Amino acid sequence: MGRLTGGDPSLLRRINSAVVLHALRGSDARTLTDLTRITGLSRPTVEGVVEGLIEGGLVVETAPEEGGARRQGRPARRFRFRAEAGHLLGIEIGPHRVAALLSGLDGRIIGAGAREVSETAPEDERLDKVRTVVADVLRRAGVPRSNLRAVGVGTPGIVEADGTVRLGTALPGWTGLALGERLRRSFRCPVIVENDANAAAVAEHWKGAATDSDDIVFVLAGLSPGAGSLIGGRLHRGYGGAAGEIGALHLLGRGETPEHLLSTTDEPLHPLDEQAVAEVFALAKKGDVRAEAAVERFTQRLVHDVGALVLALDPELVVVGGWAAGLDGVLQPLREELDRFCLRPPRVVLSILGEAAVGTGALRLALDHVEEQLFAVEGSVTARR
Amino acid sequence: MGRLTGGDPSLLRRINSAVVLHALRGSDARTLTDLTRITGLSRPTVEGVVEGLIEGGLVVETAPEEGGARRQGRPARRFRFRAEAGHLLGIEIGPHRVAALLSGLDGRIIGAGAREVSETAPEDERLDKVRTVVADVLRRAGVPRSNLRAVGVGTPGIVEADGTVRLGTALPGWTGLALGERLRRSFRCPVIVENDANAAAVAEHWKGAATDSDDIVFVLAGLSPGAGSLIGGRLHRGYGGAAGEIGALHLLGRGETPEHLLSTTDEPLHPLDEQAVAEVFALAKKGDVRAEAAVERFTQRLVHDVGALVLALDPELVVVGGWAAGLDGVLQPLREELDRFCLRPPRVVLSILGEAAVGTGALRLALDHVEEQLFAVEGSVTARR
Repeated sequence: MGRLTGGDPSLLRRINSAVVLHALRGSDARTLTDLTRITGLSRPTVEGVVEGLIEGGLVVETAPEEGGARRQGRPARRFRFRAEAGHLLGIEIGPHRVAALLSGLDGRIIGAGAREVSETAPEDERLDKVRTVVADVLRRAGVPRSNLRAVGVGTPGIVEADGTVRLGTALPGWTGLALGERLRRSFRCPVIVENDANAAAVAEHWKGAATDSDDIVFVLAGLSPGAGSLIGGRLHRGYGGAAGEIGALHLLGRGETPEHLLSTTDEPLHPLDEQAVAEVFALAKKGDVRAEAAVERFTQRLVHDVGALVLALDPELVVVGGWAAGLDGVLQPLREELDRFCLRPPRVVLSILGEAAVGTGALRLALDHVEEQLFAVEGSVTARR
Repeated sequence: MGRLTGGDPSLLRRINSAVVLHALRGSDARTLTDLTRITGLSRPTVEGVVEGLIEGGLVVETAPEEGGARRQGRPARRFRFRAEAGHLLGIEIGPHRVAALLSGLDGRIIGAGAREVSETAPEDERLDKVRTVVADVLRRAGVPRSNLRAVGVGTPGIVEADGTVRLGTALPGWTGLALGERLRRSFRCPVIVENDANAAAVAEHWKGAATDSDDIVFVLAGLSPGAGSLIGGRLHRGYGGAAGEIGALHLLGRGETPEHLLSTTDEPLHPLDEQAVAEVFALAKKGDVRAEAAVERFTQRLVHDVGALVLALDPELVVVGGWAAGLDGVLQPLREELDRFCLRPPRVVLSILGEAAVGTGALRLALDHVEEQLFAVEGSVTARR
């Protein structure tokens, strides 16, 4: 049985504080009367909680409304959540580029930046690029680094809970890299590192193609294909952070890698050459027979891998992302195959966020971390075995 | 945001009641002093809660301890949880047999029964057998039907939340059967229907091969292979209840069904003829070349299907169940293949519960249902977006 804190008055204070903050966040400004009505708390309780939140810098009293119909007597005090009380970064570290998104505590993006980086760049060079992009984004937005509350990072590879990359073949020097620790030296706030497909799944759920569903699989279709899944709206990382690493399924007797499947010559493509992949898709569209055959082989492989994910997890929705160009061609074969063997086939849609998905998901993970501190109550009061 | 009840005094009463009941369940008998210490509640609170639980029939005062060293003054009152205050049934409805397990509210099994049934028996005959077994088990244990608090049922097929079998090709008349509704006519308590592999996963976690792990995949290796998985100790059913129905993966271009793979002739085995399967395994052990080849084909297929589950879910542990005899031969190839392509391969073990797994899991699901009523507090007090 977990530790129970049901009788703890400070727990109730925290709950009430979280409830009021939550109500304030949903609107521009609210009166005490609004908050009393929305939260069901007593007016003295709401007053006490709001005073505490003002002291903590999270809430501010706004100026009384001007204009409009004049009201009798003193106007009601209005309060708003201070989204500017803290800031968050969502960072993508990929094979070809690093990017950063900046937001306030409301998650609204107020700054963005990106730099290209060579797929062969060693880890130090890649991290230098990250620092450059971050410094640039903060400077342009006028946000001091000390105001960051959390930083999320999305990157290829299997990532441990502490932010160490356990296996990352897509980037040089990535396997074994203590990425979380390295980045924490640049920030005085928590740094959350997550697999790129996992981050993208979170992003599509937040503001992409999957906002209507809590049970989704996001497929990062590429030469190193991966997948991230949400179950009941929560990221499913797996016991060792390797859930969705379906790319290894071909090792089980299927033999051919996507680099071979997509090649139109006898030579495999370079594992990270996404440009070459886009070219093969483009050629196929123009009717090139070898390219068509390559795309056909690749699609079959993708259908099989996604099929395995769908059978294992039974999601409501599959979101396919990766290279924006050409990938729409895999949707129809995927749908047809899933229709064939699934009793209730999931919907299959393209990513809406495209190349912004990983950074957006990283930002959301940073926001989740902060919201847990602001809005959640530690320890469940539900007694279970 | 969900409804919050943080300021509700009746919520605190319920929490306190759950906490005290939980403490009482863990032992034979406890004094008020024990309960005060364990729960951290005040003595008057504990006294009030215990009185309420006695009135509700869930707790009883036991006779003072006899013998041992005499103590000064009046002996402390001792209380115990009344496991006999209610009873639970776990029912297995399979192709070849129906079985039932009976327990009190502590989950200790106090009765069991089973009957063989033909795999070709229509649904009414199968349900009649269930009713016969249940009546027999209740009568022998001297438990009146009215004392049942919940009934769990494990059966092949994809089962909807309301207990309707959406697809069940293993049993005649099963697809579309409103199994939950039919059984609720026999019982005046909640009836929870679950897929057999899902129930078996719950069972192995409760008292089988997976008591040490919360992230498991249970594989019901058979001619209609299925799987159930627990994520963080909770059953993962999937959006439509079809998670783990990996048996359909062969439709994706792999072609051969297990009935073909295991056949030593040109004719496939009957889909439900598990006896024939056991014979093929036995023949292979004796060195029969055709049987060896059949087992080899079957094992490769199983390895691929389990591999897909492992890559999708990343469990800590894989439990293999199904036919008790012969199945141990698949463990080693499975381990070798998973070692090859998993960074952190899951442990692979045989089911401990064997043919008792499905009924045991059904019982646990019934117990979960009752425990949720007894020990849990409705509605989280955690405010989230």
